[in-house]
Amino acid sequence: MIRIGILGYGNLGRGVEYAVEANEDMELVAVFTRRDPASVKPRTNVPVVHADKAAEWKDKVDVLILCGGSATDLPEQTPAFAKLFNVVDSFDTHANIPAHFAAVDAAAKAAGHVGVISVGWDPGMFSLARVYSNAVLTNGTDYTFWGRGVSQGHSDAIRRVPGVKDAKQYTVPVPAALEAVRSGANPTLSTREKHTRECYVVLEEGADAAAVEKAIVTMPNYFSDYDTTVHFISEEELQRDHAGLPHAGFVVRSGATGKDGEHKHVIEFNLKLDSNPEFTACVLAAYARAAHRLASEGAKGCKTVLDIAPAYLSARSGAELRAVLL
Amino acid sequence: MIRIGILGYGNLGRGVEYAVEANEDMELVAVFTRRDPASVKPRTNVPVVHADKAAEWKDKVDVLILCGGSATDLPEQTPAFAKLFNVVDSFDTHANIPAHFAAVDAAAKAAGHVGVISVGWDPGMFSLARVYSNAVLTNGTDYTFWGRGVSQGHSDAIRRVPGVKDAKQYTVPVPAALEAVRSGANPTLSTREKHTRECYVVLEEGADAAAVEKAIVTMPNYFSDYDTTVHFISEEELQRDHAGLPHAGFVVRSGATGKDGEHKHVIEFNLKLDSNPEFTACVLAAYARAAHRLASEGAKGCKTVLDIAPAYLSARSGAELRAVLL
Repeated sequence: MIRIGILGYGNLGRGVEYAVEANEDMELVAVFTRRDPASVKPRTNVPVVHADKAAEWKDKVDVLILCGGSATDLPEQTPAFAKLFNVVDSFDTHANIPAHFAAVDAAAKAAGHVGVISVGWDPGMFSLARVYSNAVLTNGTDYTFWGRGVSQGHSDAIRRVPGVKDAKQYTVPVPAALEAVRSGANPTLSTREKHTRECYVVLEEGADAAAVEKAIVTMPNYFSDYDTTVHFISEEELQRDHAGLPHAGFVVRSGATGKDGEHKHVIEFNLKLDSNPEFTACVLAAYARAAHRLASEGAKGCKTVLDIAPAYLSARSGAELRAVLL
Repeated sequence: MIRIGILGYGNLGRGVEYAVEANEDMELVAVFTRRDPASVKPRTNVPVVHADKAAEWKDKVDVLILCGGSATDLPEQTPAFAKLFNVVDSFDTHANIPAHFAAVDAAAKAAGHVGVISVGWDPGMFSLARVYSNAVLTNGTDYTFWGRGVSQGHSDAIRRVPGVKDAKQYTVPVPAALEAVRSGANPTLSTREKHTRECYVVLEEGADAAAVEKAIVTMPNYFSDYDTTVHFISEEELQRDHAGLPHAGFVVRSGATGKDGEHKHVIEFNLKLDSNPEFTACVLAAYARAAHRLASEGAKGCKTVLDIAPAYLSARSGAELRAVLL
C-alpha cells in the first residue's frame, strides 16, 4: 500500500480523500493542516495533524499531496515539504512554473526525494496533449479552450467589486470558434473570439447594479477583453443553481503533412468535468503513485508530467497494460 | 542530427520520408528494401540499399523505422533488425503484442539496442489516451470508436470475394452511440450499435452483383456483425472519389467521483486524419527521436509508448517545454 498524506483540507483535499479510496493500492494515513487540527473534520476516520508536526510523520507517509493554492501556499510549501516527503502539487501559475521547478528541484535533490509539480488538468493532462501533439504534428497550430466551467479566479475578482455579496463566473468557449478549429481551418482568433464570460452576481443590499455591472465588464485583464454578460440573481438562486464547480476544456492541434501540406490532421483532447477539484484530485493520486515508484527506483528531484512515462501512473503491471490497454 | 533509415518503401515509408523532413533534428540516410533497389525510386535523393546489406550501415544509421506490415513482415523483421539498429515499428495486431514484445526485447537486449514497438495511433496515441484516462478515472468505462475512415483489412477482404475487381471499405461510428458515450450516459453497446460499414465495390465484368453483395454482408468477423451497405461503382469513380486513406477515431472514458459517484467526468481523445499512413509516420518519427535518446542514455530492450516519458518525443529541451507547453 502506498501511504498518502494530504496537506490542506479544502475542496481539493476532500477530492484527494475520495481519490485515494478509489485506488486500491493506496491508503490515506494523515491529513495535515495549518488550522487547529480539532477544527478539521475529515469525512473518513483519518488522523488530523498540525502541519508543524509533519516531521514526525517522515517515515509514515510515502507521498504527501499538497492541496493548497498556487498564489501563496505552494511556492512556499512544496519546497519546504519536499525536505520531508516525496510530494505532488497542482501548482498552476503557468508563468511561474520554471521558478517553482527550480525551487522544488533543489529541495528535493538535497533531501533525496521526488517532487512532482503542476499536476492536474491544465497544467497537467492538457500539457500532455500539447506536448504529444506538437511532437507528432511538427507543422501545425495549437488551440486551448476552457469551459463551460467555473473560474475561481474570475469569481473571486467579482467578489472584490464594491456592492457584490457573492458571485460565480463561467468561462464559455465560443462554439463557432471551436468548430472552426476542429475543422482544421487553422483560424487566427482574438481573445474575444475564443471565449465569453458569464457572471452570476448577488448584490449587497442597496448596491447600484449599473455601477457593479460597469465595474465588472471594464475590469482589465479579467473581463475587458471579453464579451461579458452579468446576471443579477438572489442568494438563494446562487446556492441552488451555481453551487457546483464544473469545468471543461479542449486542446486542439491542427497540422499538415505530405506534398505541399496537402493532408490535414486534427488532434483533439477534451474534458467535461462535474467537479474540477475532484477530477484534479484523481490526477494527483495517479501521479502520487508515479512519485512513489520513481523514488523507490532511486530518482531524486523535481519532475513534471512531461518527465514521467505513462505506465508509472497505472496500478497495473507493464505486461498487463500491454495485453489489455495498448 | 539523428540519422534515420527506412525499411520498406510503401505508403508508410513514403510518409516517414515526409515526416523526417518535417523534423529539423533528423536526416534520412538510407531506404532499405527487399525488392531490387534499382526498382525503388524515393521522392528525395537518398540511397536505396538492399535489406540484405543493412549490416554495412550499422554505424551509419541511428534509428531504423520499419514500415512493413504486421501480418508477416514485422514479426520477423523487428527482432532481426534490432540486432543491427535501434528500431521503431507500428506493429498493430493487438492480440500478438505480448509475443512481439518478448521477441524484440530479447533481440534488442542481446545487441544493446532499443526497440520501440506498436507506435502509431491505435496502438499508439489511442493507447496513451486509454492508459492515462484509466489511471486517472479508476471508476469508469472505456470506449473506442474508429472512423469515418478506410480500413485496409476490410477493403482487402472484399477484394478477395470472387467477382470483385477493386474495393474500399469505410468504418463509420454510429453518431447516436458516440453522442451517448460523450454525454457520460455509460451505455452498453453491441458491435452493431457502435459502427456501420460502407463498401464501395468495382465488379469484374459479368459478375453477379447480388451474389457479391451477399458474400460481403454475410462474411464472418469482417461484416456479419455490422449493418453493412454495399455501393457498386465504376473503376473511375473509385479512383476519383476513394483514392485517399483518411481515418479518424475517438477514445472516450467516462467515470464518476465523490459521494456515491455523484460527479460524472468524460475524458475524450480524438483524431481526424486526411492520411492515415502519413500521420502514423509522424508518430513513428517522434518515437525514433525517443529511441535515439534512450539508447544514448544506455537504455536497452523493447519499449512501448507506455514506457516512454512525453518529453523524450520533443525536439525541445525540458526547460523550454516547461516554459512554453506545460
